[in-house]
Formats: sequence, C-alpha cells, structure tokens
Amino acid sequence: MARPVIALLTDFGTIDHYAGTVKGVVLGVCPEAAVVDITHEIPPHDVLAAALELAAAYKYFPPGTVFLVVVDPGVGSARRAMAAEAGGYRFVAPDNGVLTLVFREVPPKRVVELTERRYARPSVSRTFEGRDRFGPAAAWLAKGIELTAFGRTLASWQSLEVPEPSVGDTQIVADVLRVDRFGNLVTNLDRRTFDRFAGVGAIEIVAGREAVGKVVGAYADAEAGSLCALFGSTEHLEIAVSGGSAAARLALGRGARIAIVRR
Amino acid sequence: MARPVIALLTDFGTIDHYAGTVKGVVLGVCPEAAVVDITHEIPPHDVLAAALELAAAYKYFPPGTVFLVVVDPGVGSARRAMAAEAGGYRFVAPDNGVLTLVFREVPPKRVVELTERRYARPSVSRTFEGRDRFGPAAAWLAKGIELTAFGRTLASWQSLEVPEPSVGDTQIVADVLRVDRFGNLVTNLDRRTFDRFAGVGAIEIVAGREAVGKVVGAYADAEAGSLCALFGSTEHLEIAVSGGSAAARLALGRGARIAIVRR
Amino acid sequence: MARPVIALLTDFGTIDHYAGTVKGVVLGVCPEAAVVDITHEIPPHDVLAAALELAAAYKYFPPGTVFLVVVDPGVGSARRAMAAEAGGYRFVAPDNGVLTLVFREVPPKRVVELTERRYARPSVSRTFEGRDRFGPAAAWLAKGIELTAFGRTLASWQSLEVPEPSVGDTQIVADVLRVDRFGNLVTNLDRRTFDRFAGVGAIEIVAGREAVGKVVGAYADAEAGSLCALFGSTEHLEIAVSGGSAAARLALGRGARIAIVRR
Repeated sequence: MARPVIALLTDFGTIDHYAGTVKGVVLGVCPEAAVVDITHEIPPHDVLAAALELAAAYKYFPPGTVFLVVVDPGVGSARRAMAAEAGGYRFVAPDNGVLTLVFREVPPKRVVELTERRYARPSVSRTFEGRDRFGPAAAWLAKGIELTAFGRTLASWQSLEVPEPSVGDTQIVADVLRVDRFGNLVTNLDRRTFDRFAGVGAIEIVAGREAVGKVVGAYADAEAGSLCALFGSTEHLEIAVSGGSAAARLALGRGARIAIVRR
Repeated sequence: MARPVIALLTDFGTIDHYAGTVKGVVLGVCPEAAVVDITHEIPPHDVLAAALELAAAYKYFPPGTVFLVVVDPGVGSARRAMAAEAGGYRFVAPDNGVLTLVFREVPPKRVVELTERRYARPSVSRTFEGRDRFGPAAAWLAKGIELTAFGRTLASWQSLEVPEPSVGDTQIVADVLRVDRFGNLVTNLDRRTFDRFAGVGAIEIVAGREAVGKVVGAYADAEAGSLCALFGSTEHLEIAVSGGSAAARLALGRGARIAIVRR
Repeated sequence: MARPVIALLTDFGTIDHYAGTVKGVVLGVCPEAAVVDITHEIPPHDVLAAALELAAAYKYFPPGTVFLVVVDPGVGSARRAMAAEAGGYRFVAPDNGVLTLVFREVPPKRVVELTERRYARPSVSRTFEGRDRFGPAAAWLAKGIELTAFGRTLASWQSLEVPEPSVGDTQIVADVLRVDRFGNLVTNLDRRTFDRFAGVGAIEIVAGREAVGKVVGAYADAEAGSLCALFGSTEHLEIAVSGGSAAARLALGRGARIAIVRR
C-alpha cells in the first residue's frame, strides 16, 4: 500500500499545542502516515474560509489522502461528526457544511456519521474533539479501516451558503471571498462566467473607487505597482497589484464587491 | 521497531530558518523519524509557557516519542543540557525547569547531563545549541542510543515556580496562565479543586469587572456571544466567550486573576 | 537509498493553502520523502531575504536534500526556472538570484533550465508555478531523476547584489541584513573581517545612537537587558539585547547601519 497521507486544515492556529497534539494522536494510530499541514490559520470558527481553502487544495493531493478538517464552532454540541468518500479522497469533519465546495465538485460516494467509539479516544473532551474524535478517525481511515465501520450512512448533511456573483446584462457584481497573504483579492467569479460576459463587448472592472487597468495573464505582466486583474490558480478572478498588495492599496477585504461593467 | 517520533517545542518562531535547520540536523541523524511541530511560537525565553504547552501535549503522543524542547534563555552559558526518560517518553531540554510540569505528572526514571561530544555536532555554537547539541541528541535518542550514553546521571535539576490558585474558605483566586488563539483564558484551577469548593454551595465567578454567566460543558452550550466558564481540554477552568474571544471582551491576559466566590 | 528530504523555503505564508498544496503535489510524486519547512514567512517577493535564510540553513541538511525555493516575483513571466547541483545538494528555484549565496559557498556542479514538460504538471498556471512546475521538479529530483533530464545545461544565471560591509582604515560600516524573531540585528560583517580590523587596537561598536557594550560569546554573557554584540550561528556580527530585543530597543531594522570605529 502506498504511504498514507493525512492533510490537516484547522483554525487551531500555531501558538498553542493543539495542532501538534492532534498529530501526536494521529501518529499513535498510524505512524507510517505523512502528516501534512494545509493551514491552521483559518480565522476562528470561519467555516466558509475553511471550505474555500480545502476546495482549492484537495485535488492536488495523492489519491486516497485523508483530509482532517476541524473548524468547528459547534464542538461539544449535538452537531454530528462525519466522514466521507468523494473523488477518490476521504474527509473527516464536523457536519457544518465545511465540505460543501468539495462535494459540489466531487459528489460524495458515501457519507457516514462518526459514532463508533472504538475509533475515538476512550474519553472524548467536549472542547477538543479534534484530538479525541476527528484525529483518531482520520488516522484509522488512513490505516485502512472501511468508511462504513465508523457509523451509519447518512442521507443528508449540512450545506453552506456560498455567495455567488450576481450576473446581469450590463454588469456582474462579484464578491471578494479571500484575501491571500500577498494581498490579492480573490473573488467568486470563475473564468467561464467572466468570458461569457466579456466576450460580447468592452468591459471595465471597478474595485473600490479605482478602475482596474486590465486583465493580465500573470502578475508580472502588469506594470510594477499597478492594479490589475487576473485569473489565479483556482481560475477565479482576482484583483492584484503587481509586486504589491491590492488589499492594502484599495483598503478592501473579504466581502468587498468587485463590479465588471459594460462600457 | 516502530517509526520514531520527534516532537519539537521551541520559541524559534517561524520567520527564520531556525526550526527548519534543526530538522535538517535531526533528519541527518535519524532520517526515518516523523518530525512533528508542537509549536515554535512560545514567546521568546518564556520557559513557563513552554512547560505548560508541553504538559498539555506530551501524553497524546505515541510511547517512546522524543520531545525536543528548546526555550533557552541561558543558551551558551553554564546551564546544563539534559535528557530524561519519564512516563515512557524521552525529553531533551536545557536544565531550566521547562520539564517541571511533565515531571510532576510522570516522575523521571532517569535524567542525564548531555556531555558526550559524539552525540553533538563537532562544533557547538554558543548561540544555537538547538542545532548543535539538543537536536542531534534528540535524533540519536530516537535512533536508539541509550540515555546513559549521553552523560552522567543527574540527581537534581532546576524546577520552575508555577503559580498555584489560592484556595480559601470563601473564595478561590486563580491565575490565567495561558491565553489561547481563540481568546480563551485558561487558568491554573483544576476541576477537582473547583468541584470540592463549589460542591458545598452557590458560587459566582468573576473575571475582570464581569460576572461570568455559568459553568457549561462546551462552548456551544452558552448563548452565542455570552461569557461562560468551562473545563477545557486539560481539565482546567477557563473563561470563554461562545463564538468569540474572552481575552478581547474582558481585556484580560496572562497573569490576570479570576475569582470564584461564595454567594 | 536513504529516505529523500525535500526542504521548502517560500514566501507563501501560512494563512493560505499554498504551501500545503505544494506538499500534496510533492507527495503525489515522491510519497516516501520527508518534506520539511525551512520557512514560508519570507516577506513577499523578497529574494534577498530568501537567499540569506537558505544560505544559513542548507548545510545542516543531509547530503542529497532537495531545496525547493519559491520566492518568485516573476512568476508566470519569461524568467527561467532552474535546478542545480551544488555541494552535494539539489536546488529548484526561479532564476532570480535566490541561490547566489549558496553558489558563493559551493559553486554549482551543474545548472539546468526546467523545461521538460513531463516533470511538470500537465497544465502550468501562470500564477502558481510552485504547484505546477517547481514542486513536481523537486519531487522528481528526490525520486532519483537525473538533473540533465529536466532541460538544457545553463552556462549563466542571475546573481543578486548582496550588500557588503564597507571596510576602511578607521571604521567598518556594516549593514543589518536580517532581524530575527528575537529582535537580533544580524549584519553582513563576518568574524574574520572583524577580527582583522579589531585585532590592531581598541574599537567601539555604534548602533543607532547607542554604543554597544562589548562583544560577548553568548547572549547570557551580557548583563540582562544590556546591549551587546556577538557572532551568531552563522558567524556574522549581530547586535542583541540579552533577554530582550535589540530591534525594539534601538528602533532599528533591516538596512540599518552599524559602525565599528577605532577609538
């Protein structure tokens, strides 16, 4: 069997021992695993941000990778814990919609509720289920335990409302969903929708009070320091400053609106 | 032999190459190890913070794990370097009390001074012993070298003063020892001491100028945005805001006092 | 064959999925690799900072380690992508000078341009070559593919201007090139040059408006809270505060000048 990969995506941050402790638990069950951090810097309890990062990353991991996704405002409550198979990958997460975007791309083959106690730690803290329930489940999955052994199959689960761009005849209004570490403003407008709209006449992109110069193919295609638009690594429109930060330049952040208007 | 695990806990931060360099050294000696970060974000030189994070994490790692703990204000000085066996684990650290809380829970079977030069790098920098002395020692331990090969057995070592709650007849005053990334104020008051006190009559918890609503079992048990108290993943009392940050709400931090008073 | 090591040094930060996604790609090609972070916190597009961190770290990794260095302001442009063998190590990076300091210490045995498409992902994003080109190349190198299989041998490549201390008869002016997480001001003045100058008479070190007390061997040799100078783990002069931050005390940062003057 190939070496199992367990990829972690949480809002645990890195100042505390939390992510490390989960890894200790995981390695106790599945010492041969490659344990990889996607990020632990999801803003606390921000399920949508986690869903977006996961959707951007998962498809670049080896088939069979187990994604351990713990952004869990409902920790310790009656919200369900679940595991799923989708697109050749496995996912362990609270049932709070954090897998919504993955499931849109690769509809799940099976989703189960995590209830089987033998695949959790003997005592499950109501404040740290990542350590006591989700971590062990991910490790047992990586170890080869079948999904159906973890609990009953679920027929439905929570979904997340993901903002969609508003597409009209004369303009599109897109939402900034992510601001990355480079200050790029990443919107929910995909290339195909944009192309369909822009293909039939001249358009202008407006971000805050500024008109965005042009749509380029790479950051370095724009003049240094100038505002530009491009389709980033997930094929969504983003507003950028070549060699700088669009977020700082425009004082815009998540939730901001970007308009694409006919001229 | 199981795959060895080496878990790192330092104040090196992540902006510099320091933690990575130590991992390079470790993998040079013991390439088969799983090298895991607990955290590198201990505030610079904060031995107590490191002791607390280590004590919260170590027991969730697989038996035999080697903990490489480098928070070392005395780097390059005459303070001793040590390695220990305790609770089925191994620890490598400066002799500055950073293992105090672990040793309270699992008294060490043996502690040695790290003096054997063959298990250090040929030249030991006086500013980066993590790279030249502690890292190699941890890797050689993981590789299977016996503890006694590293130097003479020590009969005593440094201990840390850890603040204890003051428990009286009419009130307990607890200290906030940690503020975690979610803004939870984690105190030094354990559940058993609290229960003994609270079991004999009504109590009130006061944090800053606010009365804390009630003791709940999980963050989600409290009304969203409300102040609550609970016993977190290490079974110590913490003050939290459901879905928010108690540290921000109360403007309290490490060293703050929390009072539990009889009504 | 020994377990391959792939060490990552980027400006990707840790709030986004970028570094994790690259690791997913790498493990898909070379699942047996130990993937190690040096740092992802290079300031965005700061090639010199990356060159310095890499030069400080690489030589402590096991022979054969593949360094995946992605600080790439020219991503998607015509700047070349390259791989190199030097000092028994392998390096994958954009051709922007980021390997300058390594190559000074260990002249490259061979440098090739990364053009062979079979060692890249089928489609190469113009905004994320770390994922689509550099990551796969590093993994294939770790897997054992020969350097010459990746593209034609290069006879020249970009170099970086690295500030050098100005050495005169009566004074040396050194530049602060790095401020580390402890607030140490690390200069470009190496110990040998300093010794040659200081060996022939009394000297004084001036940082900002303060005279630096003395050159010590370790932080703990100086009085707590006092300003001192020493040669750090890369044998370059640094200004430090024992148990504190020289950067905060002096309000100095990268680019600041430190004078060593004859008295």
